Amino acid sequence: MFLDKLNWRYAAKKLDPSKPVPAEKVDAILNAISLAPTSSGTQPFEVFVITNPSVREEIKAVAWNQSQIVDGSHLLVFAAWDNYTEARIDAVVDQMAAERGGLTDTLKAYYDNLKAMYLPRPAEVNFDHAARQAYIALGFALAAAAELEVDSTPMEGFDPAAVDAILGLKDKGLRSVVILPLGYRDAAGDWLAPMAKVRRKAEDFFTRID
Amino acid sequence: MFLDKLNWRYAAKKLDPSKPVPAEKVDAILNAISLAPTSSGTQPFEVFVITNPSVREEIKAVAWNQSQIVDGSHLLVFAAWDNYTEARIDAVVDQMAAERGGLTDTLKAYYDNLKAMYLPRPAEVNFDHAARQAYIALGFALAAAAELEVDSTPMEGFDPAAVDAILGLKDKGLRSVVILPLGYRDAAGDWLAPMAKVRRKAEDFFTRID
Repeated sequence: MFLDKLNWRYAAKKLDPSKPVPAEKVDAILNAISLAPTSSGTQPFEVFVITNPSVREEIKAVAWNQSQIVDGSHLLVFAAWDNYTEARIDAVVDQMAAERGGLTDTLKAYYDNLKAMYLPRPAEVNFDHAARQAYIALGFALAAAAELEVDSTPMEGFDPAAVDAILGLKDKGLRSVVILPLGYRDAAGDWLAPMAKVRRKAEDFFTRID
Repeated sequence: MFLDKLNWRYAAKKLDPSKPVPAEKVDAILNAISLAPTSSGTQPFEVFVITNPSVREEIKAVAWNQSQIVDGSHLLVFAAWDNYTEARIDAVVDQMAAERGGLTDTLKAYYDNLKAMYLPRPAEVNFDHAARQAYIALGFALAAAAELEVDSTPMEGFDPAAVDAILGLKDKGLRSVVILPLGYRDAAGDWLAPMAKVRRKAEDFFTRID
């Protein structure tokens, strides 16, 4: 059943602008994103949920004019932390302490160690690490959308600096890494819809060591 | 239902060595990994599925001795391509042509353009890009495991060069990026099991632009 849904999904090239995704389905997809695990529980990214047509038009113009950005009803923009900072990690620790019954020595030591490892690293290394965590959540969003029979098309084909400027991300210490239109496929207008799903053969992709 | 399963999952710190994951559930998780979308359909990584106890002991020794690596029944190692190469991209194009009715001009032009973009880039940039794709598949694996009520604990806390050496990845042009033990939680022996799941508040994590 779950696998059937994952087989059903594909990166729709044409979405039907007349069919918006219901709010409760969008909320469920956002909930899945929030539930995605991340390294040391930092959730080092934010997600922008854009319905505004003119903002989406602006983004489309810096994303190879991919029509799904405006033909879907919602555009998710995953924006990773540009760096790990003491304040950001302290906020994680403070929330854990508040929700798990106080700041224990173990909790403090764990995150002190994390800070000692992360804070001296170049910002670019930390950003790349944060971006990977956002991709786990992207996976959860794609799986949740499929489960709800909502179409979703992950896109890296955009100018990140331009999207950052449109959304004012730099001042927030964020950098866009991947965007995800949500909507419903217009299968009749989509060249990809009738195509076979192509995946590497299992013997080239998986190696069993028993 | 799906969200209930994602809520049920957590990064188990203690797995029960007496409870192996049935082969059909492992196969379903691998199937989900294979179905994960990747940039331009390249699937630029491989997955090692390890049950061998001594290989897992070796990996555990270079992974902070995390017990789940040997207490689970299966260890998945996600290993990303160390670079994009002409041969690797050509193999993707060849398979698409074979399974979608021939090499069209559009297909050829798309991947010629991809090669022009990827091949001149530093290997590290391409590896980072490939690693992100592996993380989408990691998300699919975690979601599929949850759906099947199999526990899974994603781990970045290991020495990648040491794991690459144990599995002979360098000669295959691969680099380990994340590992994932599969098994069943030993809740009574796990300090994390009774803890509340902590997630950033929606208002700090999602921004709506309507």
